Amino acid sequence: MSETGWSNFEETVAQEAFDKAYQREIAALIEEVRAQASAIAEIKDMWVLHDFLSARRHDLDGKYEYRNSVLIFVFARLVKEGWLNIKELEGLDKDKLAKIVALARM
Amino acid sequence: MSETGWSNFEETVAQEAFDKAYQREIAALIEEVRAQASAIAEIKDMWVLHDFLSARRHDLDGKYEYRNSVLIFVFARLVKEGWLNIKELEGLDKDKLAKIVALARM
Repeated sequence: MSETGWSNFEETVAQEAFDKAYQREIAALIEEVRAQASAIAEIKDMWVLHDFLSARRHDLDGKYEYRNSVLIFVFARLVKEGWLNIKELEGLDKDKLAKIVALARM
Repeated sequence: MSETGWSNFEETVAQEAFDKAYQREIAALIEEVRAQASAIAEIKDMWVLHDFLSARRHDLDGKYEYRNSVLIFVFARLVKEGWLNIKELEGLDKDKLAKIVALARM
């Protein structure tokens, strides 16, 4: 166990789960943006797309922060939002998993 | 001739030309955004689209300002950029047209 409170094995599990969730959310977002763009009929629709992208970019920038100190919260949010299945975090220690599950239910 | 230096007839010509240029530029922009969106393959492409929309929105907001005091400059730019043909401004007085032509060549 390192100073961070995450073993090397846990780090590997965490990094993989994190990347998986990120790829999924990005893939879904790309689909959404393509659909919105193909449905643009007037200028207003284009600015709606622009506002949507601004909001999502800001949201994603804040959300996918890989720091050990906030990882429990990040994973709880990703599980809650459906980007990650709790099973994909197997390998983390029981305490961490229990916290993630509890936070995801809030 | 009103206080603004634009006759009612000139106002009509100007407003029509202005609207025409705006509709053309918007239509071209919508096409461009659709094309860019359909070509998004990864997250980076999406932020490129976002930056592009931010820049174009800012640009259009400043450019399509219908105020008599700046209209000569606006039309010169629209002619220069190809969104308006000088013939579509026929009906404006000779001085105004000459200024627009001269500015458009700069």
